[in-house]
Amino acid sequence: MSHNSFGHLFRVTTWGESHGPALGCVIDGCPPLIEVTPEELQVWMDRRKPGQSRFTTQRKEPDSVKILSGVFEGKTTGTPISLMIENVDQRSKDYGDIKDKFRPGHADYTYQTKYGIRDYRGGGRSSARETAARVAAGGIARKVLGDSVKIKGYLTQIGDRVIDRTRADFSEIDNNPFWSPDPGIVEEWTVYLDAIRKAGSSVGAVIEVVASGVPAGLGAPIYGKLDSDLAMAMMTINAVKGVEIGDGFSAAALTGETNADEMRSGNEGFPRFSSNHAGGILGGISTGQDIVVRFAVKPTSSILKPRDTIDINGNETEIQTKGRHDPCVGIRGVPVGEAMMACVLADHLLRHRGQNG
Amino acid sequence: MSHNSFGHLFRVTTWGESHGPALGCVIDGCPPLIEVTPEELQVWMDRRKPGQSRFTTQRKEPDSVKILSGVFEGKTTGTPISLMIENVDQRSKDYGDIKDKFRPGHADYTYQTKYGIRDYRGGGRSSARETAARVAAGGIARKVLGDSVKIKGYLTQIGDRVIDRTRADFSEIDNNPFWSPDPGIVEEWTVYLDAIRKAGSSVGAVIEVVASGVPAGLGAPIYGKLDSDLAMAMMTINAVKGVEIGDGFSAAALTGETNADEMRSGNEGFPRFSSNHAGGILGGISTGQDIVVRFAVKPTSSILKPRDTIDINGNETEIQTKGRHDPCVGIRGVPVGEAMMACVLADHLLRHRGQNG
Amino acid sequence: MSHNSFGHLFRVTTWGESHGPALGCVIDGCPPLIEVTPEELQVWMDRRKPGQSRFTTQRKEPDSVKILSGVFEGKTTGTPISLMIENVDQRSKDYGDIKDKFRPGHADYTYQTKYGIRDYRGGGRSSARETAARVAAGGIARKVLGDSVKIKGYLTQIGDRVIDRTRADFSEIDNNPFWSPDPGIVEEWTVYLDAIRKAGSSVGAVIEVVASGVPAGLGAPIYGKLDSDLAMAMMTINAVKGVEIGDGFSAAALTGETNADEMRSGNEGFPRFSSNHAGGILGGISTGQDIVVRFAVKPTSSILKPRDTIDINGNETEIQTKGRHDPCVGIRGVPVGEAMMACVLADHLLRHRGQNG
Amino acid sequence: MSHNSFGHLFRVTTWGESHGPALGCVIDGCPPLIEVTPEELQVWMDRRKPGQSRFTTQRKEPDSVKILSGVFEGKTTGTPISLMIENVDQRSKDYGDIKDKFRPGHADYTYQTKYGIRDYRGGGRSSARETAARVAAGGIARKVLGDSVKIKGYLTQIGDRVIDRTRADFSEIDNNPFWSPDPGIVEEWTVYLDAIRKAGSSVGAVIEVVASGVPAGLGAPIYGKLDSDLAMAMMTINAVKGVEIGDGFSAAALTGETNADEMRSGNEGFPRFSSNHAGGILGGISTGQDIVVRFAVKPTSSILKPRDTIDINGNETEIQTKGRHDPCVGIRGVPVGEAMMACVLADHLLRHRGQNG
Repeated sequence: MSHNSFGHLFRVTTWGESHGPALGCVIDGCPPLIEVTPEELQVWMDRRKPGQSRFTTQRKEPDSVKILSGVFEGKTTGTPISLMIENVDQRSKDYGDIKDKFRPGHADYTYQTKYGIRDYRGGGRSSARETAARVAAGGIARKVLGDSVKIKGYLTQIGDRVIDRTRADFSEIDNNPFWSPDPGIVEEWTVYLDAIRKAGSSVGAVIEVVASGVPAGLGAPIYGKLDSDLAMAMMTINAVKGVEIGDGFSAAALTGETNADEMRSGNEGFPRFSSNHAGGILGGISTGQDIVVRFAVKPTSSILKPRDTIDINGNETEIQTKGRHDPCVGIRGVPVGEAMMACVLADHLLRHRGQNG
Repeated sequence: MSHNSFGHLFRVTTWGESHGPALGCVIDGCPPLIEVTPEELQVWMDRRKPGQSRFTTQRKEPDSVKILSGVFEGKTTGTPISLMIENVDQRSKDYGDIKDKFRPGHADYTYQTKYGIRDYRGGGRSSARETAARVAAGGIARKVLGDSVKIKGYLTQIGDRVIDRTRADFSEIDNNPFWSPDPGIVEEWTVYLDAIRKAGSSVGAVIEVVASGVPAGLGAPIYGKLDSDLAMAMMTINAVKGVEIGDGFSAAALTGETNADEMRSGNEGFPRFSSNHAGGILGGISTGQDIVVRFAVKPTSSILKPRDTIDINGNETEIQTKGRHDPCVGIRGVPVGEAMMACVLADHLLRHRGQNG
Repeated sequence: MSHNSFGHLFRVTTWGESHGPALGCVIDGCPPLIEVTPEELQVWMDRRKPGQSRFTTQRKEPDSVKILSGVFEGKTTGTPISLMIENVDQRSKDYGDIKDKFRPGHADYTYQTKYGIRDYRGGGRSSARETAARVAAGGIARKVLGDSVKIKGYLTQIGDRVIDRTRADFSEIDNNPFWSPDPGIVEEWTVYLDAIRKAGSSVGAVIEVVASGVPAGLGAPIYGKLDSDLAMAMMTINAVKGVEIGDGFSAAALTGETNADEMRSGNEGFPRFSSNHAGGILGGISTGQDIVVRFAVKPTSSILKPRDTIDINGNETEIQTKGRHDPCVGIRGVPVGEAMMACVLADHLLRHRGQNG
Repeated sequence: MSHNSFGHLFRVTTWGESHGPALGCVIDGCPPLIEVTPEELQVWMDRRKPGQSRFTTQRKEPDSVKILSGVFEGKTTGTPISLMIENVDQRSKDYGDIKDKFRPGHADYTYQTKYGIRDYRGGGRSSARETAARVAAGGIARKVLGDSVKIKGYLTQIGDRVIDRTRADFSEIDNNPFWSPDPGIVEEWTVYLDAIRKAGSSVGAVIEVVASGVPAGLGAPIYGKLDSDLAMAMMTINAVKGVEIGDGFSAAALTGETNADEMRSGNEGFPRFSSNHAGGILGGISTGQDIVVRFAVKPTSSILKPRDTIDINGNETEIQTKGRHDPCVGIRGVPVGEAMMACVLADHLLRHRGQNG
C-alpha cells in the first residue's frame, strides 16, 4: 500500500504535520556507498524553504535536515535513511476559525469527513510543509542518479501570465525569485503578484521540470510506466490538478506525422531524434531524450477574501483565512517538482537494474 | 512492484500480446458474493471492441471474455478472478518492415533498447489490445461499486476540433460512434476523420470521464491520493500524454476566490457546493461531487505516411505502416478510461473500508 | 497487497480452483532474453503431477502447461508470462457431503466464515492443485537463477518415521517414489503408508530443500530477509505448519560457540565455513553456503475415517471424506518446496541487482 | 518492496542503527480516532528494554518513545504515526576488533559482502535494538485490535531446558524474569543461565506467543495467509531460525484423525472445537480459536569465548566479543514476538474489513 509512500526500489515514506514537533521521511532501498552529507541535502532544502521573498509564506523555518540513520562515515550503508526536519516556527495563534469551519477548496472538509478528526493547526498533514521531506529525499535521489543526470524546474505561467518561450534562457532560472527562464516576464510577474497579494487573493501556476542525461530504457510497458509514475508523483504534490508529458494536451491536436519524432543515426549507437514531442518517453520507457514534465498548480485556497462555507456542524457561515500564506504556492512547487522527478528516476534506475541486470 | 499491475486491495494484473494466443487479467481482492456473469462483462467488451465503425481498426475480434476462476454459481468467492480473451484475428502477414525498423513515436525503439527483444507482431505488449483486459476488469469493478456509482466517458476533442459545451447533452453520448455529448459536432468530426483516414494520417483526442454517486471520503492525504491514482491510471493507457482533474491546467489562471468551490448546507448532512472546479477531489479525497478526469491521447504513430527512421542496426531508412489502424485511437479510449475510473474507485472503496472500518 | 501474489521483482500471481476450467499464474518481472520452452517447464510439472504412485491422489491430470504470453521465439521478452494448466479430470461426482459439512482440519469452515461462499468442489481454491501453478513458476525461476544454482528437495520424515542421515545418499533421491535420500527407509515407508492408506487415514511429513551455488549477498537486513521470505513462501504451501532454516528449532539448545559457524580463508576470496548451522543465511543475507530450509506438512484432513463436525447450519453431524486423496500429501510437497525456493531466490537475485547494481 | 517494512494496510517501516542518534518507525494506515498516549506505549517498551536483569544486556537505555506525528489531541488522525526512540547509552569504546573481523554466526560478513560497508558499532542495523521500534509499533497495533484481543508471550525453553507444561500457570508469566509460565523451572533456568553467562557463552530459546479473542475470518487463502504472514514476521526477528503454528513440526507425526480438530455446536453461532492442533488457523484464515505461534531463537553469536574467523582482508584470525551482551537474547524476544503478533493481526483485521466490508 502506498498511502504515504512512493517508489518501489527507491521507496520514500513521509510523515509529519505542519505544526507537530517535526516532519521527515524514511528512504528504503538506497544503494550503499554513496557519499552524502547533510550540507548537500541542505542546498535543496534552502531552495524550497519559506520566507525567502515576499511571494512565499513568511513563516520562518530553517528547514535544517538531520540524517538519523543509514549513513555511516559519510556514506550510505544500504539500510534505511531516516531524515528529520524539526518544525521551529509554529507560531502560537488562535486557530478558532479553521478549527470549526471548512476552507472552500481546501482539504479541511474531506479530511474531517474521511477520518472524523483532523489536525487543523496550519493544515496539519495537508500543509505544503510536507513537501520539505520530499525535497530532502530528492537530494538523496540525485546522488543515486549521479552527476550525468541534470534536473531543472522552472515556472512557465503564473496566473494567466505565460512566459514567452522565444525569450527563454535557462541560465536565467536561478537569477530571479520565480525560477523563470524568461527574464522578460519577471517585472510583469512581480507587479502582478504584488497586486494579488495585496488583494488578499492568490493565483495558480504551471511548472515544467526537465531531466537531461537520462539513459534510454528506464520504465516499463504497462503499469510501471515512467510517465504514469511521473504523473502520479506530480499529482501527489499539494494543489496540483494536471500533469503533462512532452506536448501533453497539445498532442491531441497534432497529426500522426507531426507528432512522431523522426529518428536519424546518431553517435555511439544512440539515435538522433528530430524533435521531442514525446517528452522523452515512448511506450512508458525513456528514449534517452530530455524527460519533460509539466504540472498545473491551482491557486492557494487559504485567502484573505471572505468565502461562503459551512462549519463542522453543517451551519452556513463565511471564512477568511488570516495568517501567513503564499499568494502563489506554485513558486515553491519548483524544487518539489524537481525532487519528485529525481525520486521517480532513481526508483526506475534501480528497477531497471533489477530486471535487466 | 507494479510493472503490470495496478490497485492495491482491488488489484488488477494484465498479461498478453497483440498476436499471442490470448490476453487477460487476474483480479485479486474482489469482495465475495457479488453476482457477475460473462454476459455482463461482455457489454463493456463490446463497447471497446474493434471494427465497429470505419474510424476504428478493422481487425475483427469477438473479444469474448471467459471467467476462468473466482466465480462460483454466479457469484464471486473472494478468490482471484482470472479473465481471458482469446485472440482470433491475428491476420497472417509479413511483419518484415516493423520487424526491423522502428516506427517513430512508437514503443518499438524503447522496448528493443530496454529488453534487447520485442514481439513486433502487431506491437506485441504495446498494442492497444492490452486494454481489452482492462475493460473486462472494469466490468468487475463496476459491480463492486454498485449501481449508485455511474461512470460515463465521452470525447470532447478530436484533433483540433473541440466540442461546444453549451450544446452538450449527455444522453446523446451513446447515439454516435464518437461518444460525443455534442450532437452538433458529429457531422464535422465524421468529415474530418474521413479525410484524416484517407490521407493515411491520424489525430489525437481528449476524453473526459465523470463518475457520479461517489461517496465523500475515498482517497488518502499524500501518496495514495484519489487524484494521483487516477492520474497514474489514465497515464498507463496507451498514447496518453496528459491528465487533468476538474479544471486541470485552467486552474492555474484562476484566482483563489474563483477556484475554491463554496459550500452551503445541503440535504441529509451533505453540503451543497456552488461549483466543482476541484473535480470532486480535495486533498486527495473525494468530496461527494462528481469526479471529473480528462486525458489527452496523442495521434496513432502507425500511419501510412512515410517517416524517417532507423533500423535495428542503426541505419537510416524510412517507414510506412501498412495494415489496420485507428485514425483516432482516442475513440476507443473512452471505454478504457471508464474502466480505469471504475478500477481506481473500487480500489479506494475497499481501502477506505479497510482503514476506516 | 499479496493475497494471491508473492515476490517483488520476480512476482508470481496464481489463480484457479480445483474443479474450474483451468488454473495458472502470471509472472511479472522476469528478465528478458531467457530461453524457455514449455517442455522444460513440463519436466517440473511431471514431478508434481498426481497419480504417479499409489501414495498420491489417483486423479489423472496431464498438468500440461501452456505459455500464453511473455515468450517470443523461445525467449522471454520482459513482459508478463502467463502460464495456464487446464483441469481435465474433474470427475463428476456428488459433492453433497462436503457441500454442506465442514471437514475438521480443513479450510471449509474458515472460507465459509470469511467469504460466506466457497467453491466446495474438490476444495476449490484451497486444493493442493493450486501448487501446480507454483511449480510452473518455479520452472521459470530456475531459468532466471541459471545452471550454477542447484535446488534439491527430499523427504526426511513420513509420519513418525525419520530417515537415518548417516545413510543419506543424495543421488538416491530420484530413485524412489518418496524422494528419500535414505534408501534404507524406502521399504519401511512403503509398508507404513500402505497401512495408513488402507486404514483410510493419513500422516504428515517433513521436507528439506537445499539450494547450492547461491551467491553470498542475497537478502536484506530486516523485513526483506531471505529467511523471512523463505519462511513465508513455505508456509503458504497447503498444510505446512512449521518452517526452519539451518538447525532451526535445534539451534535453541546449542551454545553460542557451537552454533556459530567458524570461518577460515578459502579460495578466490570466498571464506570456508567449518559448519553450516545457519543454513546459509546470516542477518537475513546469504553467506554463499548451501541454503537449507525444512518444513513440516500436517496429515491430510480429507480422510475416510469418520470425524465429528457441524454442518453449515451449525448442526452436529459427522463426516467421512470419500474420493481420491493423498495418504501423505507431503510427498507431492517436495517439488512444490523446490519451486518456492527457486522463486524466492530469483526474486532476491533481481532485488540484489536492483539495489546493488 | 519491503526491505524495511512489513504489513499492508497497517504498515510499519523501521529505521535506525544501534549506535546512531535514534531509531524508530513510521506506521502508515492506522485507523483514525484511536486514543493513544506515549505512556501506554511506554508500558510495552519497558518490558523489552535492556538492563532489567543480569540475563539481559547491561546497556542502560530508557527507551523513551516519542510520538512525532499522526496523533492529535490524544487521538490518531489516520495520517502516518512517526515514533522515535533516542539512543542514549552508546558507550564510547574501541570497536577495533569487530571493525575488522567478522563474528562467526553474526551478520558482519554478510552485510559487508552485500553492501561493501557496514556500521559496525554495536552491530549497526543488525542490532537487536531495532526491535525497540517494533515494540512501539506493536503498542499501536494492540490499540487497533482493541481490548477483546489478548496477546501473551512466554519462554518454553532456554538452551536445552524445556518447561513442564503440566505445571504451566499463565498467571505466573509476569512474576519472573524469564516470562516463564512454569514456576518450577525458574530456579533451574537461573542457575543454568548464570553458568552460561560466567562461561562467556550463550544459549538459544523457544518462545510461544498466543493471541486469544481473534475473530474467525482473518487471513486469506494463498499468499496473504495469516500463518505465512506470522511466519515471516517472526522470522524477521533477529536470531530466529524456526517458526511453528499450532502443533508445528509435531503435526508431521500425527495421523489425520488425530490432527483434525473436531467441531461441535457452540454458543452464539460459533462452533466449539475439541482441540487446537491447528493453532487457530485453517487454510490461512483464523478459526476463532487461540492463535498459537512458536519460534526458536539461536544463541547470541557475540560471546566472550574465542572463535576462529577471518578479517575483512580474508586473513585467518580469531575473535572474542567483549562488552555488554545477552547470554540469552531470546528472553527479550518475548515482547518482540508479542508485538509482531499484534502488528500482523492488526494488518489482517484492516485487510479483512477492506475486502469484506
